[in-house]
Amino acid sequence: MTPDVKHMKWWGWGEEGVFFNYLNKPQFAPFVKKALDIDLRPRKIDTIAFDPDTVPDSTLPDDLAAALVAVTSPDQVSVDPHERVVHGHGSSVTELLHVSRGDYGRLPEVVVYPATDTEVAGVLAAAVEHDAVVVPYGGGTNIARSLQLDPAEKRPIISLDTGLLSGLRELDEDSGLARVGGGMQGPALEEALNDRGWTLGHMPDSFTHSTVGGWAATRSSGMQSDKYGDIAGIVRGMTVVRPAGTVTLRPVPSESTGPSLREMFIGSEGRLGVITELWVQVHRLPAERVVVAYMYPEWKSAVAAIRQIAADEVPTTFVRISDGNETGFSLATQKAATTLKKKLEGKAQAGLWAVMRRRGWNTDQMCISYVCFEGLAADVAARRKAVDAIARRHGALSLGTGPGALYDQKKFDTPYLRDFLLEQDVMGDVSETAAPWSKLNGVHRAVYAAAEKAFAQLGRKGWIMSHLSHSYHAGACLYFTFAFKAGEKPDAEYALVKTAIQQAFVDAGGTLSHHHGVGMEHAPWMEQVVSTEGVALMRSLFDAADPGAHLNPGKVIDAPLTLFDNLE
Amino acid sequence: MTPDVKHMKWWGWGEEGVFFNYLNKPQFAPFVKKALDIDLRPRKIDTIAFDPDTVPDSTLPDDLAAALVAVTSPDQVSVDPHERVVHGHGSSVTELLHVSRGDYGRLPEVVVYPATDTEVAGVLAAAVEHDAVVVPYGGGTNIARSLQLDPAEKRPIISLDTGLLSGLRELDEDSGLARVGGGMQGPALEEALNDRGWTLGHMPDSFTHSTVGGWAATRSSGMQSDKYGDIAGIVRGMTVVRPAGTVTLRPVPSESTGPSLREMFIGSEGRLGVITELWVQVHRLPAERVVVAYMYPEWKSAVAAIRQIAADEVPTTFVRISDGNETGFSLATQKAATTLKKKLEGKAQAGLWAVMRRRGWNTDQMCISYVCFEGLAADVAARRKAVDAIARRHGALSLGTGPGALYDQKKFDTPYLRDFLLEQDVMGDVSETAAPWSKLNGVHRAVYAAAEKAFAQLGRKGWIMSHLSHSYHAGACLYFTFAFKAGEKPDAEYALVKTAIQQAFVDAGGTLSHHHGVGMEHAPWMEQVVSTEGVALMRSLFDAADPGAHLNPGKVIDAPLTLFDNLE
Repeated sequence: MTPDVKHMKWWGWGEEGVFFNYLNKPQFAPFVKKALDIDLRPRKIDTIAFDPDTVPDSTLPDDLAAALVAVTSPDQVSVDPHERVVHGHGSSVTELLHVSRGDYGRLPEVVVYPATDTEVAGVLAAAVEHDAVVVPYGGGTNIARSLQLDPAEKRPIISLDTGLLSGLRELDEDSGLARVGGGMQGPALEEALNDRGWTLGHMPDSFTHSTVGGWAATRSSGMQSDKYGDIAGIVRGMTVVRPAGTVTLRPVPSESTGPSLREMFIGSEGRLGVITELWVQVHRLPAERVVVAYMYPEWKSAVAAIRQIAADEVPTTFVRISDGNETGFSLATQKAATTLKKKLEGKAQAGLWAVMRRRGWNTDQMCISYVCFEGLAADVAARRKAVDAIARRHGALSLGTGPGALYDQKKFDTPYLRDFLLEQDVMGDVSETAAPWSKLNGVHRAVYAAAEKAFAQLGRKGWIMSHLSHSYHAGACLYFTFAFKAGEKPDAEYALVKTAIQQAFVDAGGTLSHHHGVGMEHAPWMEQVVSTEGVALMRSLFDAADPGAHLNPGKVIDAPLTLFDNLE
Repeated sequence: MTPDVKHMKWWGWGEEGVFFNYLNKPQFAPFVKKALDIDLRPRKIDTIAFDPDTVPDSTLPDDLAAALVAVTSPDQVSVDPHERVVHGHGSSVTELLHVSRGDYGRLPEVVVYPATDTEVAGVLAAAVEHDAVVVPYGGGTNIARSLQLDPAEKRPIISLDTGLLSGLRELDEDSGLARVGGGMQGPALEEALNDRGWTLGHMPDSFTHSTVGGWAATRSSGMQSDKYGDIAGIVRGMTVVRPAGTVTLRPVPSESTGPSLREMFIGSEGRLGVITELWVQVHRLPAERVVVAYMYPEWKSAVAAIRQIAADEVPTTFVRISDGNETGFSLATQKAATTLKKKLEGKAQAGLWAVMRRRGWNTDQMCISYVCFEGLAADVAARRKAVDAIARRHGALSLGTGPGALYDQKKFDTPYLRDFLLEQDVMGDVSETAAPWSKLNGVHRAVYAAAEKAFAQLGRKGWIMSHLSHSYHAGACLYFTFAFKAGEKPDAEYALVKTAIQQAFVDAGGTLSHHHGVGMEHAPWMEQVVSTEGVALMRSLFDAADPGAHLNPGKVIDAPLTLFDNLE
């Protein structure tokens, strides 16, 4: 019997029975028609039946199987076909494209669920002894192909599911620090903390299924990072089990003890060991939380306003602006007004539209912005007042708290959209970067130009939109969503568009990824971003730390499968 | 002719002609008498004449000399005895003790001043080819023995002075980012930035002589880190020249590109290469700057107040509290009142003392606190009001802005005190840690107990005092200053006391150093702090990145000279 660990659909994102639905969004189908020249059709399938007969038998060697059972228990070791398929991929769009069509790719020979550090150490020792590969698996949400397995790998592959390494183990209320199992998923942790009046506040799009250890291993960032920090700031201590021993880093607020081991494990994507436990910063639940929406006439003034909020050190939980395209998309995904309250809001919105029209705003260029404030009521009021003033100086109109409440409810729905599009034969995905403030507008322009050029090469209508989020003193993250109608070779077409966008990031002074990680998807650009000698140094570290290449090899650098492979 | 690069006294801290003076501080001598049972005597020496004849000739091999001149120029390569002595040590108290007595220790064979990345690469190539060691030298201010040379090193040692790798090279005003030469010293950089309306805001005690590259290489933090960040937060991009090539990390606000190379170089103390250029965050000079002083009845309530300021996210530039002993020391180092203004302030102070006495405060336990606010006048006023309220709730009295202005003036004077004490045959030094809020009081108690025990073992009266500074969400830094009358074996006595304090840090849940680095001084505790396997991983990195051990070997881990060696 396999342990009771929650997994996503084997063939797509999220929970069975949950989907993106456009039928209750009257403006969505016309929007897609205009944007992609596609006639949407109602969803045909609610699920894809899993057929174990389509899965090749595991070729796990008997001695390795015996060794894994010996260090755990029979219930913690599985060669079940469904288990192996679930653990054989992450959530990148190309992986889901193939898996949902029954093309599983390289599957792990076995899935193991260690429940303690000792068991993890046992699994690693068995892997080294039997010359196997270990790929740590958290929630399976990674979209940078950090979990995809190399078809050319001849050695047995063990998927090490961290699901049993879970639980809120300690809460230091004086310090705002919690000790948490690496395999704990977002909702379970947040619930356990909320019960005691605390919150982690780390809210990546993948929150509902991803794990704390996975966040650390992929250098994640949540939508509320302005207040709560990126995962590198949130994680203050950790335990990492390695084949040669266990690294324990005690939780301290900051330290000067040489090169940061903490910052080596963060982002290591399984290549340096298995992150089994973390000390994370937690915050008391705020007395008040408000999300205020603003509408700016155009992108540049909105970016300037956000830059000013950062420069003035106004404490915000998040600040976000959607560009003209994304604002248009947002308006198109609003549900039909069904309640009196919404009708009244509709009237208020109509009044705002009148003001905007009077001011001569171009509705295609308007940018909606959300700013979240948390704290004592008086602090929230003071901070909101400060941001109101900055927004006004940059030409914005306040839309109040109505749209913000809606934004807060919908915030984890986006990943379902990708599967919906896939079923409509549309390749849709996201890609994100970070850049200094001085380069943000240039990156934005360059990515649009690159995407449009790629769509033109495909000879198809495509769509791209963007928002700015995660602001820092020196810059911010730009997050792009793009889509196009798939043709004969969706992989290769995707590669063409994605490659164009990534290259535009790098050429315009941005980085490869702000918070999605590298995996195999972004590895080919690493030399351009951290320099050839930087990659060489990283390779020295990986080779020295894992001389037998047992730990998720081929991720971050030296990827065996690149996007370019799909072009052939 | 040697390049015009500013260096400190060859035998002590800072500039020739600048000293700590106690004669204008009427309460200082009685204080020292009480604290250390020592009768101070006026300073006997103003300087120590340098005698080149006491320095053994350089044994620099001719071929290496020729190679170094070939990659730079004759003017950039020096075997001058004074140069070699200056570059043969950092500023740890044991190094200064010996150097000031003419016991120079291991000296570098040669000092080189490369002026470009290409020249640095040339020096490194020459070192590898001729099997020499390279020790990068910035301002020489390090007190963790990161610059001390190993007497057992048989290979030629090249001191690579970064002084010509200087200059504010680019200022990105939109992003608040500056590109700076690694060898630029604090005052020159701050002046260049101030001229254009900007500030770095990084103010370590060593500021007047230390360099940007040195700050990065030792994982430094300045007294204003609450606002401006630790150096790891300030540095967003960098260039590091290594024997195999040059690593260039572009400036971005945050990124998810695998293990952080930036965070590997920060704190690397020369072991991974030479940091030649940095992109650092800079801020506009604040419209207003105010330092407000508060007096708390005792330590615990002051710590609780500071924790609350952090939890409420009140933007401050720094928050600092001195414990009872340090508050007493502060009062004892005040200059005699000579102006009417000061007399009036004295009267105001007398009024405060009356209030304190009425409240029954124990004057030995009172803690002075400084809080700095910067920004627009309205923001400063609002933040000060918020801190005033928190301070009041924790029993504090506001002392206004008078003492704070004084604090601001004196802030870089402390290091001179150590030399003054040395001349009085007193070993005085500092040691600092960081810990979670829940452990700070325990660390404070444990360090006092450990120091008192060590003083008792020496059979001498000793002094210890502390302040809390650098506050974070999860904890803060505790900074200790200690002193005792030296006996026959000042090295060994120092080792006994310092060892006791460092061990107390680690045992009580603190870290080894918050911002002084590791060097050789703290290396023996690394396994206790980052675990045995953590040190093993770091060793893998250093060995793989520098297989010939040419780059400042024996620092951070595997130190050839430990404090314990001095005990024998």
